[in-house]
Amino acid sequence: MFPRITEYVHQLIQPRIQQGDLVIDATMGNGHDTVFLAKIVGDTGQVFAYDIQQQAIENTELRLLEEGLHHRVTLRLCSHDQMEHEENSVSVVVFNLGYLPGSDQSLTTEPHTTLGALDLARKLIKVGGLIVITVYWGHEQGKEEKLKVEEYVEQLPYPEYMVLKYQYINPKNQPPFVLAIEKRK
Amino acid sequence: MFPRITEYVHQLIQPRIQQGDLVIDATMGNGHDTVFLAKIVGDTGQVFAYDIQQQAIENTELRLLEEGLHHRVTLRLCSHDQMEHEENSVSVVVFNLGYLPGSDQSLTTEPHTTLGALDLARKLIKVGGLIVITVYWGHEQGKEEKLKVEEYVEQLPYPEYMVLKYQYINPKNQPPFVLAIEKRK
Repeated sequence: MFPRITEYVHQLIQPRIQQGDLVIDATMGNGHDTVFLAKIVGDTGQVFAYDIQQQAIENTELRLLEEGLHHRVTLRLCSHDQMEHEENSVSVVVFNLGYLPGSDQSLTTEPHTTLGALDLARKLIKVGGLIVITVYWGHEQGKEEKLKVEEYVEQLPYPEYMVLKYQYINPKNQPPFVLAIEKRK
Repeated sequence: MFPRITEYVHQLIQPRIQQGDLVIDATMGNGHDTVFLAKIVGDTGQVFAYDIQQQAIENTELRLLEEGLHHRVTLRLCSHDQMEHEENSVSVVVFNLGYLPGSDQSLTTEPHTTLGALDLARKLIKVGGLIVITVYWGHEQGKEEKLKVEEYVEQLPYPEYMVLKYQYINPKNQPPFVLAIEKRK
């Protein structure tokens, strides 16, 4: 069976991360990916996770404490277009575009900050590194963001970057799909 | 690094085939996929390979003899919309849409026979089975076939079928992409 989209994202990410690596969860949400990343980087690695909602920080913190992974993660209550890290230092940056599951659906990621964050993420990842974006576009503001982000990644210069689109195209309910940007030079 | 499209196809196919299985190469071409399939099915398995060009049969036969895999494969000089096998008996059907590499580029797969063959393939594969289509659309007639095939797979009923599109979207030279149809019911 084809993997669920969330599983596929994990399959893409896992082989790109070594113990001790620096990785970023650009959209913390409820912390599922933050925990996944924290497990892989090991005790010598570091995860930075960003979100603009206090609720996301609290949910993620709780999850990390439960898993005993809190010491590997720095949680930041700020927008992902304010990420500050050294260039070419990060293995993987993960984005989930949409709203915080179980929360206010009118508060979503927005095209201009998302594109700003992608510009940043491109500089931060090292050669061989990956930006993985899961696009949830079933909600009201989702269509515009989907179009903007697709347009952005399609024009990324090849072969400096290679962009993969992975999508299940016959379900009618606008299921999420994956865009993955690999830095090659 | 992301895999080349031909490697990705092999990654999709491999876990779907057990020794002893019946599989089909619907577009034999120069026999690369035929050989790949013959290796996986083992001595108790069977590969049927189709092509309308005598040159394809000869190239593939030679390759199979070199590899000592000839006894596992039946080569048929006929169109893939004439495939005859039992329904729900086949694990994997492979298509490469375009022209025979190194041969006459005006002789290509054509939309109406391709769609007929896909209709057939859907009946032949068993539940859990896979149809994998690599769409080469850089040539003159390729655009129309691409559109027709995309339209066809997008309307396949879900959840009876799940259709994956895997594409590298930023290179400008119209690189091949993959459509994969999984039968779920």
